[in-house]
Amino acid sequence: MDSKTPPGHHTPHHSPTADVLDDLRGAVGETQVLVGTGLEAYERDWRKRYHGHALAVVRPGTVAEVAQVVQVCAHHGISIVPQGGHTGLVGGGTPDNSGAQVVLSLQRLKRVREIDTDNLTMTVEAGCVLQAVQAAAAEHDLLFPLSLAAEGTCTIGGNLATNAGGTQVLRYGNARDLCLGLEVVTAEGQVLQGLGGLRKDNTGYALRDLYIGSEGTLGIITAATLKLFPMPAATLTALATCANPSQAVALLRLARTRLGATLTGFELMNALSRELVAHHLPQIPQPLWFGATSGEASRDAGAARPCPAWSVLLEQSDEQGPEQAQMRLEALLAEALEQGLIDDAVVAKNLSESRELWHLREAIPLAQAEEGLNIKHDISVPVSRIPAFIKGTDALLQTRHPGCRLVNFGHLGDGNLHYNVQAPVGQSAARFLAEQEAAVNQLVYDAVMAHGGSISAEHGIGALKREELTHRKDPVALALMKRIKAALDPQGLFNPHRVV
Amino acid sequence: MDSKTPPGHHTPHHSPTADVLDDLRGAVGETQVLVGTGLEAYERDWRKRYHGHALAVVRPGTVAEVAQVVQVCAHHGISIVPQGGHTGLVGGGTPDNSGAQVVLSLQRLKRVREIDTDNLTMTVEAGCVLQAVQAAAAEHDLLFPLSLAAEGTCTIGGNLATNAGGTQVLRYGNARDLCLGLEVVTAEGQVLQGLGGLRKDNTGYALRDLYIGSEGTLGIITAATLKLFPMPAATLTALATCANPSQAVALLRLARTRLGATLTGFELMNALSRELVAHHLPQIPQPLWFGATSGEASRDAGAARPCPAWSVLLEQSDEQGPEQAQMRLEALLAEALEQGLIDDAVVAKNLSESRELWHLREAIPLAQAEEGLNIKHDISVPVSRIPAFIKGTDALLQTRHPGCRLVNFGHLGDGNLHYNVQAPVGQSAARFLAEQEAAVNQLVYDAVMAHGGSISAEHGIGALKREELTHRKDPVALALMKRIKAALDPQGLFNPHRVV
Repeated sequence: MDSKTPPGHHTPHHSPTADVLDDLRGAVGETQVLVGTGLEAYERDWRKRYHGHALAVVRPGTVAEVAQVVQVCAHHGISIVPQGGHTGLVGGGTPDNSGAQVVLSLQRLKRVREIDTDNLTMTVEAGCVLQAVQAAAAEHDLLFPLSLAAEGTCTIGGNLATNAGGTQVLRYGNARDLCLGLEVVTAEGQVLQGLGGLRKDNTGYALRDLYIGSEGTLGIITAATLKLFPMPAATLTALATCANPSQAVALLRLARTRLGATLTGFELMNALSRELVAHHLPQIPQPLWFGATSGEASRDAGAARPCPAWSVLLEQSDEQGPEQAQMRLEALLAEALEQGLIDDAVVAKNLSESRELWHLREAIPLAQAEEGLNIKHDISVPVSRIPAFIKGTDALLQTRHPGCRLVNFGHLGDGNLHYNVQAPVGQSAARFLAEQEAAVNQLVYDAVMAHGGSISAEHGIGALKREELTHRKDPVALALMKRIKAALDPQGLFNPHRVV
Repeated sequence: MDSKTPPGHHTPHHSPTADVLDDLRGAVGETQVLVGTGLEAYERDWRKRYHGHALAVVRPGTVAEVAQVVQVCAHHGISIVPQGGHTGLVGGGTPDNSGAQVVLSLQRLKRVREIDTDNLTMTVEAGCVLQAVQAAAAEHDLLFPLSLAAEGTCTIGGNLATNAGGTQVLRYGNARDLCLGLEVVTAEGQVLQGLGGLRKDNTGYALRDLYIGSEGTLGIITAATLKLFPMPAATLTALATCANPSQAVALLRLARTRLGATLTGFELMNALSRELVAHHLPQIPQPLWFGATSGEASRDAGAARPCPAWSVLLEQSDEQGPEQAQMRLEALLAEALEQGLIDDAVVAKNLSESRELWHLREAIPLAQAEEGLNIKHDISVPVSRIPAFIKGTDALLQTRHPGCRLVNFGHLGDGNLHYNVQAPVGQSAARFLAEQEAAVNQLVYDAVMAHGGSISAEHGIGALKREELTHRKDPVALALMKRIKAALDPQGLFNPHRVV
């Protein structure tokens, strides 16, 4: 990108581009219209898969300024790529290569406008970092439960625009379920006043839900009213091992029955997921493997005693305090052992052990990256279909792509797997991807569709899956989506060529 | 209606109307196209406020037949009023007086297509009566939590089309929150295949949420995949009394903190609500009033010892069984007593006492109907604004409409009040309504808006509140709704002049 100066930077005044930049500067001030070099953070996604080139990066500081920017762009017919923390995984927030798009960064809109402790709501601006939202709630001893790996960088506006998922969906739902109201700038640069902490409001169409998950293609979310929850008195974590996914599904069913809504997390990991963590991150303890919870694990030691075939991480958040919570969790695990659903289990004795268990799960993406490039899938199927999906798809992959390795982990409680395919041992990952990625994707997505699933459970469509979506989504749904896009953004200003 | 034969009934063949009827008969069979007299159940709402007159009532038996009916109507330019159990409160399912609309009854689509116990979902057709849906789930020891007064008659399709609320919203959400997928017939007579039990699916716009709550104006819901829950091991009910709404809000906050998601109901009743029940339905026990839980209450006896100013009905559904549940509920009430939030409390000792407590709450609409016509409001404000809303609005009503009486009860946990205004004692209810309804509505809705509330919390807009909505809803939102209506139903076939 550095090799090319964006159009407009050195062009004489009164050119069309200069007019646009002048109008944008009029809207947000000289210093908040960035052009030229040094804009990598805005023009390249963090995984370095998408590298674009913007006319300008504009950083409004208020919703009125956002509206003005949209009006300027609408007037000049310039398309807009809204951007939050720029942590997306599907290229939805990176400008294209035309040098003709404006990146509209929401990062300066980061006020917490209100916390209403009796209504259990907070109203925050789109650019608030997720972790800051969690922290602002925690100051009042309240919980904002959305939690995901990028929470130190991603913004709540981006979370809502992509309907983010994460590790607490089983109990609290996706970002959509945590939002009661939105403020949105429309394609005409008007402000939709939809904030407010109402739990019931049946006055017309669900505009809020339409904007949530639309990935910046229908409007620009500038603020949101979010649900909060009393902070649970105790949060406990356990690790259990079992022989196959059917047992994991049966354990989930039992856990939901015994723990109800206090079951807040239920994560599945296959053996290879844990083996890669043990190999690349040996400092992380590997309980229920070598019979020890200390950090002695290594791949070689594991050869003698193989890694458990499947591991489940359970989290329970209980209002009744730690003793009651531990009693319930241990009773559940004892019952599961008795029923033969699990082989072994360990409950974290303190916060530090609990963090270690989560670390085991959260280190998998890093460990697999260390192992080499792989073919990622963020898929969901009904929970009841998980065992058949895994068995059938694993087998088919082995037949058609012999030796390929499955790094299979994810949010079993939501039917959501990160079902990633790694090159066979000793084979070049780059070559494997180049030669087999298309066929692997086809195979996996065919299986997902056969089980009534989704090709994007929580990461969205963006640029990455837009073409695939045209083959996989109900054509009636696709046609309706296009009509909605045309109705709400007739000029096609907002994030063109994304989603639809 | 009986006095007038619908057009088409006796007209000669080959008239436009006869052509339509022929085509409809071709779509669903002779016997399922009803014309002429005896159609009151379809043409008049149950509260007898709306009385229309249809070209025909058509009763398709499959989704394919629904699609054909829509195609026939689209071809002839005939508008369609979709209808479920016809229990709505806002005139959304009754045809107009033109004799030119087709009532499309979904009542024959009543199959339970699938129950998936491991995925905790069921797929049912739109015409399933809510109680039948609950019962089908209960057969598998599972809970479908949507519950409301009309559950013996209303259909799940109508519940979804109106985003129904009810008594379990605090824990489980509205109908919207209980639905994972929809099958919908579009205005072109195509079938949107959106069923499926996925808890995460980020592949495009939230079409499901757009149809839910659209009151039949955007498409016809023909089937839905619903969330189920393990049946709680124990459900307990308690009644508490307090001096004012501020204390009730503080009790709610404490209950949410101590009981978490096991708090499934939190209903508020003012004194007059209970007094009317005591007067008109003296067989219902009135605990915490005369110091007795037996049914001796009467209005005269109450004169000596006044009815508690405010009463709260709490429900707790616990996975841990009855003993643990009772311990938790009693501990909560003891803490509330100690903090001075409540004056007294009683926990139902068994299912029969629990039903009596609920009966007390559920009898209020009947008791107020016995007392005479009144001006009804189904409003919501943020929970934190409830005390100020009640205090200010009560006072203003007394100033401008001296002697008027407030029957104020509802789902405090959701910020939703049925804030109903009754004529002063001894004054004609009919005259009060005729002379003061418009001014009372204006006053109440002004207050609702001033507190950031909604003029329709759970009943919808229909015909009743459509005009009011144009004054109360954000104009940007209204304009967007009209664009969406035009995009998805360009001919305006579906339930015209409702909602937008």
